Order: sequence, then structure tokens, then C-alpha cells
Amino acid sequence: MCHTVAVTERIDHTLRGSWTPVAGSLPPHALRWLRERIGLGDVRTPARAPQVPESLLSDPAKAALGEVVGPGYVRVDRDSRLGRAGGLSYVDLLRQRGDGGLAVPDAVVLPASPEQVVDVLKACVEHDVAVVPFGGGTSVVGGVTALRGDKAAVIALDLHRLDRLVSVDPVSRLAVLQAGLPAPRAERLLAAHGLTTGHVPQSYERATIGGFAATRSAGQASSGYGRFEDMVEGVRLATPVGEWRLGGAPASAAGPDLKRVVVGSEGVLGVITEVSLRVRPRPAVERYEGFVVDGWERGSAAVRRLAQRRVLADVTRLSDVDETAVSLALAGGWKTNALKAYLRARGVRRPCMLILGWHGASKAEVARRRAETLRGVRLVSLGKALGEAWRHGRFNGPRQRDALLGLGVCVETLETATHWSRVSELRAAVREALVDALGDCLVMCHISHAYETGASLYFTVLAARDAADPVGQWQVAKAAASEAITGLGTISHHHAVGTDHAPYLEAEVGGLGLDVLASVKRTLDPTGVLNPGKLLVGDFTRAGLASPGDR
Amino acid sequence: MCHTVAVTERIDHTLRGSWTPVAGSLPPHALRWLRERIGLGDVRTPARAPQVPESLLSDPAKAALGEVVGPGYVRVDRDSRLGRAGGLSYVDLLRQRGDGGLAVPDAVVLPASPEQVVDVLKACVEHDVAVVPFGGGTSVVGGVTALRGDKAAVIALDLHRLDRLVSVDPVSRLAVLQAGLPAPRAERLLAAHGLTTGHVPQSYERATIGGFAATRSAGQASSGYGRFEDMVEGVRLATPVGEWRLGGAPASAAGPDLKRVVVGSEGVLGVITEVSLRVRPRPAVERYEGFVVDGWERGSAAVRRLAQRRVLADVTRLSDVDETAVSLALAGGWKTNALKAYLRARGVRRPCMLILGWHGASKAEVARRRAETLRGVRLVSLGKALGEAWRHGRFNGPRQRDALLGLGVCVETLETATHWSRVSELRAAVREALVDALGDCLVMCHISHAYETGASLYFTVLAARDAADPVGQWQVAKAAASEAITGLGTISHHHAVGTDHAPYLEAEVGGLGLDVLASVKRTLDPTGVLNPGKLLVGDFTRAGLASPGDR
Repeated sequence: MCHTVAVTERIDHTLRGSWTPVAGSLPPHALRWLRERIGLGDVRTPARAPQVPESLLSDPAKAALGEVVGPGYVRVDRDSRLGRAGGLSYVDLLRQRGDGGLAVPDAVVLPASPEQVVDVLKACVEHDVAVVPFGGGTSVVGGVTALRGDKAAVIALDLHRLDRLVSVDPVSRLAVLQAGLPAPRAERLLAAHGLTTGHVPQSYERATIGGFAATRSAGQASSGYGRFEDMVEGVRLATPVGEWRLGGAPASAAGPDLKRVVVGSEGVLGVITEVSLRVRPRPAVERYEGFVVDGWERGSAAVRRLAQRRVLADVTRLSDVDETAVSLALAGGWKTNALKAYLRARGVRRPCMLILGWHGASKAEVARRRAETLRGVRLVSLGKALGEAWRHGRFNGPRQRDALLGLGVCVETLETATHWSRVSELRAAVREALVDALGDCLVMCHISHAYETGASLYFTVLAARDAADPVGQWQVAKAAASEAITGLGTISHHHAVGTDHAPYLEAEVGGLGLDVLASVKRTLDPTGVLNPGKLLVGDFTRAGLASPGDR
Repeated sequence: MCHTVAVTERIDHTLRGSWTPVAGSLPPHALRWLRERIGLGDVRTPARAPQVPESLLSDPAKAALGEVVGPGYVRVDRDSRLGRAGGLSYVDLLRQRGDGGLAVPDAVVLPASPEQVVDVLKACVEHDVAVVPFGGGTSVVGGVTALRGDKAAVIALDLHRLDRLVSVDPVSRLAVLQAGLPAPRAERLLAAHGLTTGHVPQSYERATIGGFAATRSAGQASSGYGRFEDMVEGVRLATPVGEWRLGGAPASAAGPDLKRVVVGSEGVLGVITEVSLRVRPRPAVERYEGFVVDGWERGSAAVRRLAQRRVLADVTRLSDVDETAVSLALAGGWKTNALKAYLRARGVRRPCMLILGWHGASKAEVARRRAETLRGVRLVSLGKALGEAWRHGRFNGPRQRDALLGLGVCVETLETATHWSRVSELRAAVREALVDALGDCLVMCHISHAYETGASLYFTVLAARDAADPVGQWQVAKAAASEAITGLGTISHHHAVGTDHAPYLEAEVGGLGLDVLASVKRTLDPTGVLNPGKLLVGDFTRAGLASPGDR
């Protein structure tokens, strides 16, 4: 362990210009740099309108669903259906731009209450209709792809009308929230009570409470607030065989924790309609700060020590050398040579950026917690501006990706987690697999979720897109990365399984694990209407990566 | 919230005498007091030797088991069988003393490895033998009662030969421990690496690692180290259909957390043979201190504030007025009138004792954490001696109970947990139910596990034993308490379900919850050899409290 005195120096203001969040477009210098780095040609790739097939929902099914939710809430128009056609993975986006077959739901159904969701499911069983629960549509693993499985039709079950803050218990710091609440609206409703979930993943702007629970989401401040599953105290699940409610105590030994079977079930075992969440007072003060450490090994060792001393900042995010370089290049405000000299003078030759953020009820509390975190860790501070820049740009990933997509870039992220003793081995293995598969490419990595026993690894990949087979290009790379992860870490730390990780689940939970999940599914969804082809793959996807085109 | 300056005064040394841990016997003054308080007669109740029926294990079954574990490790002698006849609940102890029918296993089988456990289970399936996994035998809810279910015989599967520390990963702070390790030995093995689990329940001296996992145990220092289930990163489960291994990452979103299906499964879904645990450095310094607060409402509000500010001491234990009075009376060293005057002068008329304990790497760290806990909370300190006295006597509960048992006392504990807004309501309801059922009795209560959203409630009950039907007397009271708990809290916070809570599980997890558990059981234990009558009750126990006499 490092017992040296903390070296947290403040960078001179003259070293940096202004940090500007990058949203929606790339600055010219970044684009030039990128062209050089990944050998990008000057190909603009305009989107084509995707094909929308005829709806296969039968009239009796439509009538039955209309009876439950009201006829106006069973929508078969092109825009409604296209708006719920898949999630936000790179392959989803390609398909939405006209590359490859897009799976479009036959209808969108919008129930207004937990009771209506149960009745919708019963109607779907009766009319042989598959159901894809749909919240913000932010899945990046195919979790909301409109697969029919062996059913006659498939609906997107859009939960946005379940948008109530049902109750607040301020003494117990518990709130019951409906599943369709988008995170920003949930936060506004809680803010009226002075409360927050503290759950802020990159999908925050669109994702919903139900989606967080269904996918075991982890937010950017997970070090402080915990993973979403750790906040869930109770769930209300609609299934084709009725409603299942769990929760009511802060902790229990009344048999296995069945709530944990529901959380992470990805719409395959039921539709989460409400969750009871542990909430906290909204922080009055947030302080974000940027640091650098010399090299990945030292950086990850520092984060490990903070986690094991249990003094992590609420937000703790370590970028590797490549991601640090790109972050600084993209930001564009740094006087690069002066910064290099500044860092070199402090022994930092291979800077790894570390963003730390503390929340608290007062400046004094935040200062106290900051001091606790920094005691005995050797970090060079680059000041609050870098931290604030990160905070302002924290949701821009998807927008930057949209910009890159239009420039012919193959751009995607993937993530995993493992124990500390394997973190560097896993990072190297995934990098190597991606470089082998993609050739000239840029692979960046960061730790954004740290635990006493290990950490997550989040990779961002950029390569020149293979215009002939863009979907295939990425699927080969993704398979290579997934193979590299298998045996060394988990196939997903917070993106979930969906279609994309389903082929790797057996290696992680065993054949018995799949059997157990299947037995639970048979109990709750005997006819298999719920989200076919996700998590537990059927025969039609078992052979490889699920592809709607294969149906 | 209370923002007043902390009032932590140190009691004058002249106020107290020496604290002597009470072990194995009651001091005369305590006995006098007890006789008065619960109307105890002068009845000594000597134990009778329980009857041990012939073993029903068939010769072929015995031979098959001997082939797996070696003939010397299949034991049918009286002492071996009697030594694994049930756990340590009050009713268990009565039965072991000759009151009511005692369920004695037909044999004790001692496997030496996880592989042998799988083979034992397969042999049991083949020979129609029920299996009760047996660690320390400390269940207080009938979890290790030797019920045959519909099988021809029942064995106690004693796991004590699985006693290895399999591996330690000091970087990731992970240790793999075998299930049969008694806690003290596990701690000694870890101590050689400078590590600890920090898991210290009252059953510590006898209980095993596997038992902790199977029952979702919570230790006395759970506020600092977490519940046992929160330490478990991986499990190895032997089942009749093969071995199931889970774990390998600090966190995951690869579907539901199936590890949580195994943890808390009470030997009904499989036999836990190894667990991978998050461990921590052994604390160099431990400081325990006793405080008092004026009244239960203020006391529980103070604990709630500490939990919600996330500055709980590692050990946090609040006794109600009655438990405080008994603790002081039992301790016997306090100059009662002087103490009363001392407390009254500080505004404390209804003292509730609060034991706080901090662990740390140094005196400075412990002092820092203590200051953090005490900032802004109004407590009157009674000094370190009271804290140390609690620490030294922390495992004496069972021994005191033995002493009371011999004196004709009906003495038992039960526990639950609920959200803060219901803590006082639940405490009152359980007290009322017990007093209604038992008449003249003493009901004491404490909070020993606090969370942001709620707390556990632990009750100790003393009454004069009904000599005519001691088992029935308690079963009526337990049923009344369980009914009172149902709907307000969980049927068990850390004792598990066993036979005693099984009738109340449906009210907590729903019919669908039972169906889900049953479907998992059918998958892993298709013929139902594993621990019949526990957790998921079969028809033979469904109608009421399981009683071996009913078989």
C-alpha cells in the first residue's frame, strides 16, 4: 500500500484554455486527428430510410389489446412502430440507417397502470403475441429488439404512461416509482421532496426506472450511491400468470432474495411495473476534479486502494493512456506542450486521467470527504475545470457517436468487470482481440465502477467502417472481445445480456444456471410470450449472435 | 435531523464497579429479580435422556455411502446421531432434554470434498434417502431438524471435513473457504494472511461458513462489514444433478444474480461446499463504548440518523428500556441509584443502552471514525468498560439460556426487520402478541442491524415454563408473534426460515414466490432428497408448524 503523503497539486491556470463540452459534432482538429489515427477515408454515409413491413398483428388481437388499454393506445402507424424498433447499439443504429434488416414491432401498446400490464400480457398469451417491454429504448445489447420468437406477432409494450411517483416515505427514505418514468422526470419528482436516487448512467436522458431495474444498471456515481440493484427494496412484476410483489424490509433472511431474480430479468420473466427505491437527500454541493496518474498500473492501483480503504469519491473514473489522450484532444482547450512539460516535471510521462466527484450536504462535508479520499494517494490535480468539463459532457457519448456514424466510423462500446488481480490481464486481452479483429483501430478503456474486490472495464472502439458489411465487421470484433472476456470477467458489468451476450451466458452461469432461469421462466411465462430471444436464447438464436434477419 | 452539538459525556468511574461477563450461570441477585419479574416457581427441571430410535438406513444405502466417503465416515452410533439431532432453538433444546419427540438422523455422513458431496447426493437419490446438510448445528428455526419427508431414511450430512482455506487473493481481497469451516477456525486461517471476514454472529463459536451462506446470516458487526450475503462473491453448490459454480466478478449485469438464489437456500436447493468471500485486513484497533439515550424513540431515531448519514459504527446495538434494565441488573456491577441520579441529571429518565464499536487500522483511524459517528448526535457515554463488557459477553446468550433452561424458564429469541417508519409499530405489535400469549413475561428488544431504510428488531422473551406442555406453550407464543410480524416486517432478518417460519413465507414472497422456488427445486433436486420440510414446506408440514412428531 502507498503510504506517501498525497501529492495533489493544482495546475496553473495558464496551462489550460476553456473546456468546452463537445456535443453533436466533432471539432475540426479532432476529426483530422481521427482520420490519421484510424485511417478514415473521406466517406460520408448518408442514412437511408429503413423498410417497415406490414403489421402482423391480427384484428382480434388488436381489439383485445384495445379493450385493455383503450383503442387509441394500440398504435400501428409507421412512426410509432419505427420509434420502438430496437435500441441504441451500433448495429441498431446501422439498421435504423438502412444497413441490414430492422426488426419493427407490429404494434405499440401503451398501458396506463400495473393492472393493465397484467391484462395486456394475458391478452398476448391468448392471441399468440410476443411482448417486448420498452422504456427509453436505450439498450445497447439488443435488449429491446422486436423479435417474434415463435409467436404470430410482436408488440412493443411502451411503459411511458406508468409515470407516477407513487409514494414517498421520507422517514425510511424510500420512494415507490413507476417503471415508465424517464430518469430526469423521476429526479424532478423526487427533487420536490428534496430527494434523489443518485443514479446517473450515460443513458440518463432517455432511460427509465423500469429499464434500470430490468438490466441491473450502474450509474456514473455508483461508487457513492451503489448500483441500481442495491437501491431496489421492492418490485412489482406483471407476468402472464398474475402479479408478483416483493419487498417490505430493508434486509431479510426469509429464503433466497427473490427480488434479485426479478432485477436483471430483462423483460424475460415479467414486466417490472413499479420499484421501491432507497433514496437520499439531494446533495447541496457537488465537486468534480480532474487528476492524472502516471500510467495505467499506478492508476488502477490507486483506485483499488481507494476502494479497499472505502474512501472512493462518489464518481471515480480512471481513463487509460489512450482515452486520456483522446479526451484531451477532443476537449481542444489544452496547451498540449505546456501540459506535457508540466506533467513531466511532476514525474508523469504516461498520463492517465482520473475524474473524482464528491457529493455532500455542505462544502465542509465535501471538503472532508475529499481529504479522506486523497489522504495517502499520489495524484496530480488538474483542477476543477477538468472535472466540471467531464460532468457537463457526461451524456454526450451518444451524440458524439451519432456524429462519428455520419462520418463513416465504426464506433461502439463494450464493458466487463473482474477482480483486481485480473484487471490488467483482462484489459490487455480485450484490446488485443479488438485490434486483431479490426486492424487499424483505436481502443480506449476506463474504469468507472470500483469495488473492494475488483472493477469494471469500459472500452470504446473506433475504426474505419467496412462499407461492404458494416454489421458483420462489428459482429466479428464483438465476438472476439466476448471470447476474450469469457473466463476472465463477466460478459457484462452494466449493459445486460439482451441478444448480443446471450451466447456467452452459459459460460458464465453454467448449464444449471440456464436451467434454473428456464424453470423460472416456465413458471412465470409458460407460453413464452415475454421478450423472446433475449437473455435466455431459444433455438433460433442459440447458434450464434441473434440477428433479426435470421428470423 | 438533529444538528445539536454532540453530548458524549464520560461517566465517572466511581459510578460503576467491575463489569463481569456472565457465562453459564446467573448471579443470585439476577435470579431473585427474575423470579419476581416473571413469577417463576422453584422448580428445577432435570433433563431426561432422549429416546434414539433404530436407524432406518438400509444396508445397501449404507454401503453406497461408505463407498463414497469411506466406511468409517458413515456413522450410525447413538452419540453421532444424537449429536446432529436438530439445532439450538428453545424447542430443540426441550426435545433434547426429553420433552416431545426428537427427530434423530438415521446416520451421519462425513464427506471430505465438494466432489464427494455430489456423489453422496447421487447415492441418496438412488437409495431414497433424505439429506440434512449439517454445519455447526446452530439453527434456531428448525433448519437442521432430521425430517425424512417421504424418504425411507434421513442422514445428517456433516460438512466438517470440508475445512480448508482453498485460496487467498490478497490483491483482490478474496478468499475461497470451504463450507464446513467453523467460524473461529476460518478466522485463524485468514489471520495468517492478515485478513478477516468481520462476520461475528452470536453463533460464531460453533457456526460454519456454509451455514452463514445458506441462511443469509448477519453478524454483530454487520453495520461495518455487511451481511454475509454481501461478502459472498462466488459459490460452489453440490446438487443431485451435478455441481453448480457461480461467481468470478465483483459485480455483473449478466442476467439475474443467481448467486442470490443459492445464498439463503437453506440446503433445500443444494449443498454449499465452498464460498468465495470478500475479506478485509484484520483491524489493529477495536474500540467499544457504551452510551445511553433517553427512551426508545430517541434511541432509534439516533440510530436511523447514523445509518442515513452513513456513519454507523461497525457494531451498533440499541437496547430498549427493558433490555437495558436487565443488562444492567445482570451485569450487577452498577451502583444503581447513583447511576440513575447521574443519568437523571443529564435528562435521561428511561435509559436505552447503545453499544457502539469501531474497528480500524490505527487508533487515529478509530478516533476519526468515532468522531464522525458522534458528530451531532445526543448521547451520554457510559465509557469503554460497558462496551468491553458487551464484547466479552457477546457469545454468552446460549450459555445463559442453558442456565435458565435448567431453572424452568421458557426462554427464546426471535427477530424481524422493517422500514424505519414502522419500527416502533412492529416492536409494539410483537411485544403485545407475546404478552397476550404468555401472560406474565419479560420481553426485551434491541436493534442490532441498521440500514438507511430500516432496522432489525431482536426480541428476547422470558416466562415461567408451562411444565405440562412446554413445547406447545412456546409454539402458541411464536405463532402469535409471527402473525404480528406478517405484513409489517420480514419473518426473519437473519435466522432464516427452517421449519418454524415456513408457514409464513407465502405471505412474504407470495404464491408466485413459492412457485418460483419450487420450480428451481424441481430443477436442482428433482426427487426432493434435500432437507425436506424446510423453507418450502411439503404437504406434511404445510398445515402448520412443522413438528417431527407429526411424521
